[in-house]
Amino acid sequence: MDLRIVLVEPLYQGNVGSVTRAMKNFGYSDLVLVNPCKLEGEARAMSSHARDLLESAKRVSTLDEAIEDCSIIIGTTGIAGSRFDLHLRVPGYSPKEMKERLSGCSGKVAVLFGREDNGFTREELKKCDMIMSIPTSDIYPVMNLSHAVAVVLYEFSDIKNAQAPLADPGDMRLLYQHLTELLDDINYPEHKKEKTNLMLRRIFGRSCLLSREVYTLHGILRKIKRNSVNDADDDSDDGSYYEK
Amino acid sequence: MDLRIVLVEPLYQGNVGSVTRAMKNFGYSDLVLVNPCKLEGEARAMSSHARDLLESAKRVSTLDEAIEDCSIIIGTTGIAGSRFDLHLRVPGYSPKEMKERLSGCSGKVAVLFGREDNGFTREELKKCDMIMSIPTSDIYPVMNLSHAVAVVLYEFSDIKNAQAPLADPGDMRLLYQHLTELLDDINYPEHKKEKTNLMLRRIFGRSCLLSREVYTLHGILRKIKRNSVNDADDDSDDGSYYEK
Repeated sequence: MDLRIVLVEPLYQGNVGSVTRAMKNFGYSDLVLVNPCKLEGEARAMSSHARDLLESAKRVSTLDEAIEDCSIIIGTTGIAGSRFDLHLRVPGYSPKEMKERLSGCSGKVAVLFGREDNGFTREELKKCDMIMSIPTSDIYPVMNLSHAVAVVLYEFSDIKNAQAPLADPGDMRLLYQHLTELLDDINYPEHKKEKTNLMLRRIFGRSCLLSREVYTLHGILRKIKRNSVNDADDDSDDGSYYEK
Repeated sequence: MDLRIVLVEPLYQGNVGSVTRAMKNFGYSDLVLVNPCKLEGEARAMSSHARDLLESAKRVSTLDEAIEDCSIIIGTTGIAGSRFDLHLRVPGYSPKEMKERLSGCSGKVAVLFGREDNGFTREELKKCDMIMSIPTSDIYPVMNLSHAVAVVLYEFSDIKNAQAPLADPGDMRLLYQHLTELLDDINYPEHKKEKTNLMLRRIFGRSCLLSREVYTLHGILRKIKRNSVNDADDDSDDGSYYEK
């Protein structure tokens, strides 16, 4: 399992430094920062002996750039995240449950942490396949960013790697595109399309699809398309390589 | 399980503040500070909404005061702690293993965290019944103090409470005193006494003795004493109430 930590617009440089230290403590090094705050002396001080990681962290300006090569996108939010209705299961899986879901898979997984004050935007949450929440006290559920990273990495650090390769991110995007086309083909009610699309994405997202499973799904979708009375492009070539 | 966090001579007030936040996040409130650094603005800032806990934390000048009413004393150290030869099992139990040892018991347990730079002294480690080490990367095993607290409390937060009461701290002290007397009574080689004493303490310490088990041990020790040919105080009364 290649684990990437993505901090979305972190506000406090001390937290970013602390995150790099926690990552190095647990043997992780793939860090991507989306529009981070300035990282200067305080960030370096808090990173302690993980300054190399702070300096090598990739900086990007959009979340899409941070996750485009990842097979599974996990958003980490506190209880507060439960106000969102995006067909995401909130409060979400605990780190322990998430570890069990990921056990046995190989591939690149992004774990996203939101802004210290406002977490994720609605659009950012839409990009997540699954939501993870650290079980905390109802009285004060909002954890410090670096504490949350430390707890997640502690839990994930003994994850069992295996040979089953997670689906390629490009194949997953194609799958979602084909599902969207399917809804078009079957004349699915226009006003329900967006929500249903998102629900389908959630279902397949949290099932941690393997490569061969995505190929099979593509095959099924193609056969549906061929049998659809409304489809004029029956013999188009797109996606046919998935039938092998 | 009543869990107490004890910080031994913490050096950085920001860490103390962060520790209170992590404690409140996981629903813990019993914090004792042994000779802490000054706790001012930075500690309050890092405690965030746990300032009440920062203010109510008990401050003492010796470790003994911090742990005198605790049945089990757990020292948390990094890999670096393995240089000590005090019959302690180092690198020690992982938080997960420690949770399993404590599951099913009720009573007061102290989890000690040492100084940010030098950890525990030899004398402080002697007072620990067990050592706990968070599994970390060999490359950079030294965690930030508040990260270590957060990880331990995360792991312990779903511990199963039960009815089996841990032995009273006073009874444990009496047990260790009686074991020392036993070594005297049987003319144990003088030069080995201290080390063997410590080893006995470790064995009984890590077995998380219950009240009734300590009573039985006291009974056994008394019978040994009575049968000892070297013992002139055969009919002394001390400890006899344990035979009930």
